[in-house]
Amino acid sequence: MSAVKHATASSNSITMRLYTAPDHGVVGAVATAIADAGGIVTGIDVTDSRHDRLVVDVTCSAADAEHSAELEKVVAAIDGVEVHKVSDRTFLAHLGGKIAISSKVPLKTRMDLSIAYTPGVGRVSKALSEHPEDVSRLTIKGNTVAVVTDGSAVLGLGNIGPGAALPVMEGKAALFKRFGEIDAWPICLDTQDTDEIVRAVELIAPGFGGINLEDIAAPRCFEIEARLRERLDIPVFHDDQHGTAIVVLAGLTNALRVVGKSIETVKVVVSGGGAAGTAIVKLLLAAGVSDVVVYDRNGTLVAGDDSLSPAHAELAAATNPRRVAGDLRAALQGADVFVGVSAPGILQPAWIAEMADQPIVFAMANPDPEVDPAEAAKYAAIVASGRSDFPNQINNVLAFPGVFRGLLDARASEVTEDMMIRAAQAIAAVVSDDELNPSFIIPSVFHPEVHQAVASAISGQ
Amino acid sequence: MSAVKHATASSNSITMRLYTAPDHGVVGAVATAIADAGGIVTGIDVTDSRHDRLVVDVTCSAADAEHSAELEKVVAAIDGVEVHKVSDRTFLAHLGGKIAISSKVPLKTRMDLSIAYTPGVGRVSKALSEHPEDVSRLTIKGNTVAVVTDGSAVLGLGNIGPGAALPVMEGKAALFKRFGEIDAWPICLDTQDTDEIVRAVELIAPGFGGINLEDIAAPRCFEIEARLRERLDIPVFHDDQHGTAIVVLAGLTNALRVVGKSIETVKVVVSGGGAAGTAIVKLLLAAGVSDVVVYDRNGTLVAGDDSLSPAHAELAAATNPRRVAGDLRAALQGADVFVGVSAPGILQPAWIAEMADQPIVFAMANPDPEVDPAEAAKYAAIVASGRSDFPNQINNVLAFPGVFRGLLDARASEVTEDMMIRAAQAIAAVVSDDELNPSFIIPSVFHPEVHQAVASAISGQ
Repeated sequence: MSAVKHATASSNSITMRLYTAPDHGVVGAVATAIADAGGIVTGIDVTDSRHDRLVVDVTCSAADAEHSAELEKVVAAIDGVEVHKVSDRTFLAHLGGKIAISSKVPLKTRMDLSIAYTPGVGRVSKALSEHPEDVSRLTIKGNTVAVVTDGSAVLGLGNIGPGAALPVMEGKAALFKRFGEIDAWPICLDTQDTDEIVRAVELIAPGFGGINLEDIAAPRCFEIEARLRERLDIPVFHDDQHGTAIVVLAGLTNALRVVGKSIETVKVVVSGGGAAGTAIVKLLLAAGVSDVVVYDRNGTLVAGDDSLSPAHAELAAATNPRRVAGDLRAALQGADVFVGVSAPGILQPAWIAEMADQPIVFAMANPDPEVDPAEAAKYAAIVASGRSDFPNQINNVLAFPGVFRGLLDARASEVTEDMMIRAAQAIAAVVSDDELNPSFIIPSVFHPEVHQAVASAISGQ
Repeated sequence: MSAVKHATASSNSITMRLYTAPDHGVVGAVATAIADAGGIVTGIDVTDSRHDRLVVDVTCSAADAEHSAELEKVVAAIDGVEVHKVSDRTFLAHLGGKIAISSKVPLKTRMDLSIAYTPGVGRVSKALSEHPEDVSRLTIKGNTVAVVTDGSAVLGLGNIGPGAALPVMEGKAALFKRFGEIDAWPICLDTQDTDEIVRAVELIAPGFGGINLEDIAAPRCFEIEARLRERLDIPVFHDDQHGTAIVVLAGLTNALRVVGKSIETVKVVVSGGGAAGTAIVKLLLAAGVSDVVVYDRNGTLVAGDDSLSPAHAELAAATNPRRVAGDLRAALQGADVFVGVSAPGILQPAWIAEMADQPIVFAMANPDPEVDPAEAAKYAAIVASGRSDFPNQINNVLAFPGVFRGLLDARASEVTEDMMIRAAQAIAAVVSDDELNPSFIIPSVFHPEVHQAVASAISGQ
């Protein structure tokens, strides 16, 4: 490994405003210095040129925040260059938040006001108090989803609390709109108590057509979801669990199409017994997988082990029919599929060679996978990850907008396992036989039909 | 009174699709029939003309829903006319709800996604977990308001519950956007328990920059507001109380300019000791009024009366220095100002003649005022009401968008009585000396400067 970092993620894009000597050769030196330090220059704009100096905006990608600082340093060290200001594109995009509200009705005249507000709105409210079944039709409820978090398990960042979680929930709301035409609103709760979370969601439910739980830590998330499903008459969906499970099942379905194996007979190892792993296991079982072994940090889960937590004991009871014991490597012997939702670097590439013929590896730990996808590809027939810079990105955005679109379209009161399997099949079916290959088992989130396909699979419409 | 109703409120607009004989004379008969029945024809469109029939869309205003049905009947009775379908404009405007969400960031490319969502958003969330003071700047929190109700006191409709209240809250959110550029979201709570309401609002507070309580019944609303003000670090404003009080004080300020009386010396009678009445009294006292008598349904409130509720006892202690006892008529003897936020028709026009010289009457019961404004005008120097079809509409929309705009602009943690007095003065000052007259004491909600004037008065910016 060289000491020079290399930019890969475009999200760490910075713009440096430079004051330089009035010598255009300096601009070339800047570009060279950034490239030598592992940065990628994506734009150079000379915004002002005077006899005594140039003003140059240089935009470049860095590997991470530390790398950005390093790039700034090498540029500042160039003779005749002063770094005046550094702007971070991602932070700039977040200024003022990422979503906004608009009125769907005109509010230009007094008459507009009398329709949208008093006195006209009074007639609508009166009608709804007499016919509550019309609330979804005559209000936003028919198209709204609450994106609810307690900030306890946000991305790979852990327990950062409700305020710091807000940008993620806003992003989710923006994606709901973009891909599902759904009006979603972030609800960041100032509690991590299960009872309080359940009650708070119950209390706000009248204004929403669905509840998307997000980034709530396991095992709390299981109980919260179960209790809300029981109490509410609108669907409750924990995306970290079910969204992930749906897209994994979609990807696995197509990976099996490629290698010509059957879902009923493959041996699957799921690494990670948290929220996502649990949901993946349950959905794989429901979809016909009969041999799943769950590996968590202390070893494989085996039924009857008294040291297991209640959630893991339940998982163990439903899995591991061959009672495979031991570490991850042991579990992988002869297995067809590895599904990782656990921790970076825990899968050694060489172990993949000990799996069955034509092994399938889904390494989805966030942001760094269980195994480097490029290394894994030396041994595996098919590799997928959560990363956008490798083929086969397993991305929840493929599922949740269409899932809720379908639920809202059908005015569904719950989301069932059958619906989720149908959604996975719909995502898989978007990839035609002609397109299908080891590097293309899953469509892009920008695929023009995938979200509607999921919605139709869910709603049956 | 004639038996024929007359359309006044434009909000009860209906469109009838008629199939008529192919005789354009029939169209004239329809217009005449509607006018004779007290309706106002606002549009006639022949949408299809064949040899055997015409298809005609007739749009007209009716006094209320019953009147609409009557108009439909008289039209259907005309020879050669079949009423095919009746659409109600207000209900049509409510289909699908009145507000929507939009993304403020582009989501067209993979790079857009990596900025607005993972992995870019992770850097923003991480920064916020280290610097919580930046949440308002880098999220929607800096521009959002929760419009919170329990549905217990909605407009003039009473306790209709959270679902039926939703259209009102949506309308409010639309007005927040239109007049204050604020992103407000309705939160309709499925409880009417004070403790639960307080806790629910506390729990959702991290995602909002302000809380607008709406249509929550008295006396519960007082305790909810007081407790939330104590616990939250964002401003809490009960619009039914303080919004109304601000606009009343603005209107009264200008009414006193017209009649040349001083706020310190006028005698004021406030009819209605509920949420609005209580807030009006408190703000009038803070603004310098020294003689206020509160009349509630059982008579004037007098300090020391053991039969009063705690809330009324507190009001009585702060008011009625002359210890006026008795009914409304007794309270009005020699009074300069009547402010009604109570019940329709309880003020007899002739009693106004028994008030002081140049009496001022604000009759704001909703939707029907304490006295018919036209009748009141025979005796009063100035008449104001909540009605849009008479001069001097006392409309909360004049206050709340600017109030919250100012609070958000200043990142204020609370709204003070001083701010509210300044807001009232700002609204009043929008009416210049040239414009001021007995029929124009308050600006229109469409006045191009009033909302910014309120915002600046609140923020001091």
